[in-house]
Amino acid sequence: MKELSSIVKLTDSFKNFSSVGSKTAERMAFNVLSMDDKTVDELIQNIKDVKEKIHPCPICGLLSEGSICPICNDEHRDHSTCIVLSSYKDVYNFEKSNTYRGTYHSLNGDLSSLKGIRPEDLRIKELLERIDKENIKEIIIATNPTIEGETTALYLAKLLEDKNIKVTRLAYGIPMGGNLEYADELTIQKAIEGRTTLK
Amino acid sequence: MKELSSIVKLTDSFKNFSSVGSKTAERMAFNVLSMDDKTVDELIQNIKDVKEKIHPCPICGLLSEGSICPICNDEHRDHSTCIVLSSYKDVYNFEKSNTYRGTYHSLNGDLSSLKGIRPEDLRIKELLERIDKENIKEIIIATNPTIEGETTALYLAKLLEDKNIKVTRLAYGIPMGGNLEYADELTIQKAIEGRTTLK
Repeated sequence: MKELSSIVKLTDSFKNFSSVGSKTAERMAFNVLSMDDKTVDELIQNIKDVKEKIHPCPICGLLSEGSICPICNDEHRDHSTCIVLSSYKDVYNFEKSNTYRGTYHSLNGDLSSLKGIRPEDLRIKELLERIDKENIKEIIIATNPTIEGETTALYLAKLLEDKNIKVTRLAYGIPMGGNLEYADELTIQKAIEGRTTLK
Repeated sequence: MKELSSIVKLTDSFKNFSSVGSKTAERMAFNVLSMDDKTVDELIQNIKDVKEKIHPCPICGLLSEGSICPICNDEHRDHSTCIVLSSYKDVYNFEKSNTYRGTYHSLNGDLSSLKGIRPEDLRIKELLERIDKENIKEIIIATNPTIEGETTALYLAKLLEDKNIKVTRLAYGIPMGGNLEYADELTIQKAIEGRTTLK
């Protein structure tokens, strides 16, 4: 193997992908050898396209191939409700669920004193501008239920206190289809706190 | 996701790798976005290099970056013993074990009436030429212990019958560190057939 320096180099390149370990990377490098030229050319072109065509939407921070993303551009969506996310990646889960017709705003991170991420590092200024400009009536904070995510949620709630808008947080509890046996203590605690009346 | 056609296309490209499923392919496509330009350029260059630089060695059929592979080119190796493999990939396991100092010959396949692979489709002619030219004294047949591999081994043994060379087959038996409990019947049968005398 060590004599095939181009295979070694390609293996190293594939190891840069977070979900690829060294065995898979090696197998993938050999895979390239047995692919026909057209497939390899397409792979290279598609890698280039992703890097060149995709940019964050200047309004919401989600990924877009045009100047403004299709969600911000869609007049049929409810622009008075906005889900605030830590990462642009989270949007796909919300869109898959097909229940939400409002807009999104990605903060591109969470507040973290450990990692030195301060409010000015997040897309908070852009959110405040949108609230005025788009006449937003409700902000649904959907940052992750981690220490950083909770800190960010509390910071935003405090910041929006004087504004005349509703600020909500996603409900936390037992996941649907989940088993109580496997739920951790904190999830159970949150599920009890957020209990709803049936009758 | 569906609005980001370049991500969809790249995901499809990554799915061409045999060890990558659709979830991993999607994650890898997003990974490309967060890589810096240098890393992506290197990835593309390394893919191109593997396709352009690596060719089969004209003598043994193993992969090589030069005209003749480093093993065929190595005068310190024993050119009178040659391991015959079904695939060039198998060489790495032999080389890792660090016990063999002879040469190799890849057939690039196994005989298979099902897949329509005939003797003339394999690199058998090249092997016969080498036996004369390199004065090979022993051929160790290391095709896989499958029906196709066994057929190929028997075919070769028959073909080399009149030649004045030793033809051997790798020993099959219980794998080292393996447990008898998990060994299949055929392996046990081979292990009994190939038993060695201790005393």
